[in-house]
Amino acid sequence: MTAHAAAPARFISFEGIDGSGKSTQARMLADALRARGHDVVLTREPGGSPGAEEIRRLVLEGDPDRWSPETEILLFTAARRDHLERTIRPALAAGKIVICDRFADSTRMYQGLRGPGLRAQVDALHDLMIGQEPDLTVLVDMDPETGLARALGRNGGEERFETFGQDLQARMRAGFLSLAAQNPQRIVTVNGAGDIDAVAADILAVVEPRLT
Amino acid sequence: MTAHAAAPARFISFEGIDGSGKSTQARMLADALRARGHDVVLTREPGGSPGAEEIRRLVLEGDPDRWSPETEILLFTAARRDHLERTIRPALAAGKIVICDRFADSTRMYQGLRGPGLRAQVDALHDLMIGQEPDLTVLVDMDPETGLARALGRNGGEERFETFGQDLQARMRAGFLSLAAQNPQRIVTVNGAGDIDAVAADILAVVEPRLT
Ligand SMILES: Nc1ncnc2c1ncn2[C@@H]1O[C@H](COP(=O)(O)OP(=O)(O)OP(=O)(O)O)[C@@H](O)[C@H]1O
Ligand SMILES: Nc1ncnc2c1ncn2[C@@H]1O[C@H](COP(=O)(O)OP(=O)(O)OP(=O)(O)O)[C@@H](O)[C@H]1O
Ligand SMILES: [Mg+2]
Ligand SMILES: [Mg+2]
Repeated sequence: MTAHAAAPARFISFEGIDGSGKSTQARMLADALRARGHDVVLTREPGGSPGAEEIRRLVLEGDPDRWSPETEILLFTAARRDHLERTIRPALAAGKIVICDRFADSTRMYQGLRGPGLRAQVDALHDLMIGQEPDLTVLVDMDPETGLARALGRNGGEERFETFGQDLQARMRAGFLSLAAQNPQRIVTVNGAGDIDAVAADILAVVEPRLT
Repeated sequence: MTAHAAAPARFISFEGIDGSGKSTQARMLADALRARGHDVVLTREPGGSPGAEEIRRLVLEGDPDRWSPETEILLFTAARRDHLERTIRPALAAGKIVICDRFADSTRMYQGLRGPGLRAQVDALHDLMIGQEPDLTVLVDMDPETGLARALGRNGGEERFETFGQDLQARMRAGFLSLAAQNPQRIVTVNGAGDIDAVAADILAVVEPRLT
């Protein structure tokens, strides 16, 4: 039995450092699967349901120091719980494919790397209140220089996390790669450095055999 | 060594069913202690810090079904974490007495009684993310009929929890009394049925010997 013979991929997340191409590739995968006749829900975190979007605004607006890492972890977990209950699980139950731009791995990295003990707290909280992983996670791997240049070249409003700098991006990249090594059944790493269509083709080649 | 020889009471919470007189008595205790020269911070939950007040609004506004019990538990715990970090702990560190209108016991009852397994989840989340109890909790005990009549006689905006009815109030009263029986060092039960000044005098008689 190979790793790819695992459960069919109905719930697919995209992860990676800032500017690695997650949102671009999640959208392209959704389009490609729809063109092949699949019923696809494209969603994102934090957010993805009306309540979770309100929590997202609360977390991302204002002074970066307005919430401690622990409070932020609790708010993101509340948003994820709402998103799971109101958007993801109903879509999966209706037989749809769910593609999610970021999920719990982002909390493991972004919040988990902010101080000693936080990663363990993120994991314990996930086990207690979420307990669900995607069937398949596409890690879009990217060197921090390219990722940051791409992210800064884009016009986005919520640049809060992107101000953390290249040092943190490098630690996150290493963290994501180590998560992938620990979860080979679930996480597939794709090189995000190529042009958009080439990366999309690589991702489709990984996803398609796992749909059934 | 008697129960009252425990740690001095710097952090004091008020608990009880709806309309039992918590807010009235918390205010009166704060006034009485201030008149005796103590530096007192009177605060409340959910809320008690700017961030926690925003989370409070998010939870209490709108359709009662907009959040699942689990999401609500996470949001209340996020608010409590912020309240502890920004209001309660700084006040205690500055040598003040903190009087808090509701704290974690309210979550144990209000959210914990909403379904099977929720109480255990509330407790686990508290241990993981909060881990602090008041030094002294005043349980204002009251029969649900009187409590509900008092609460309805008052003009309040956020009546959401008070619509849950007398059955739930009766289960909560029993739950609070059982919590008190399990935590005799921390929780003191006071009869809330007397007139306001009589109840206040009973509470002051409980609190004063525990201040040092
Ligand atoms: N393969 C690529 N080559 C060149 N540019 C790309 C590539 N993929 C995405 N981009 C561009 O880089 C920018 C960042 O891409 P995108 O928003 O998809 O990244 P992201 O991982 O979702 O970022 P964030 O972490 O900030 O959400 C966008 O302007 C996008 O058009
Ligand atoms: N001992 C008392 N006798 C008569 N009325 C009282 C007494 N204590 C409080 N009240 C009145 O009962 C109403 C409810 O009191 P209060 O708001 O203090 O209760 P509470 O426990 O804080 O309620 P809630 O759970 O809704 O916050 C108020 O109008 C208050 O003035
Ligand atoms: Mg994105
Ligand atoms: Mg009150």
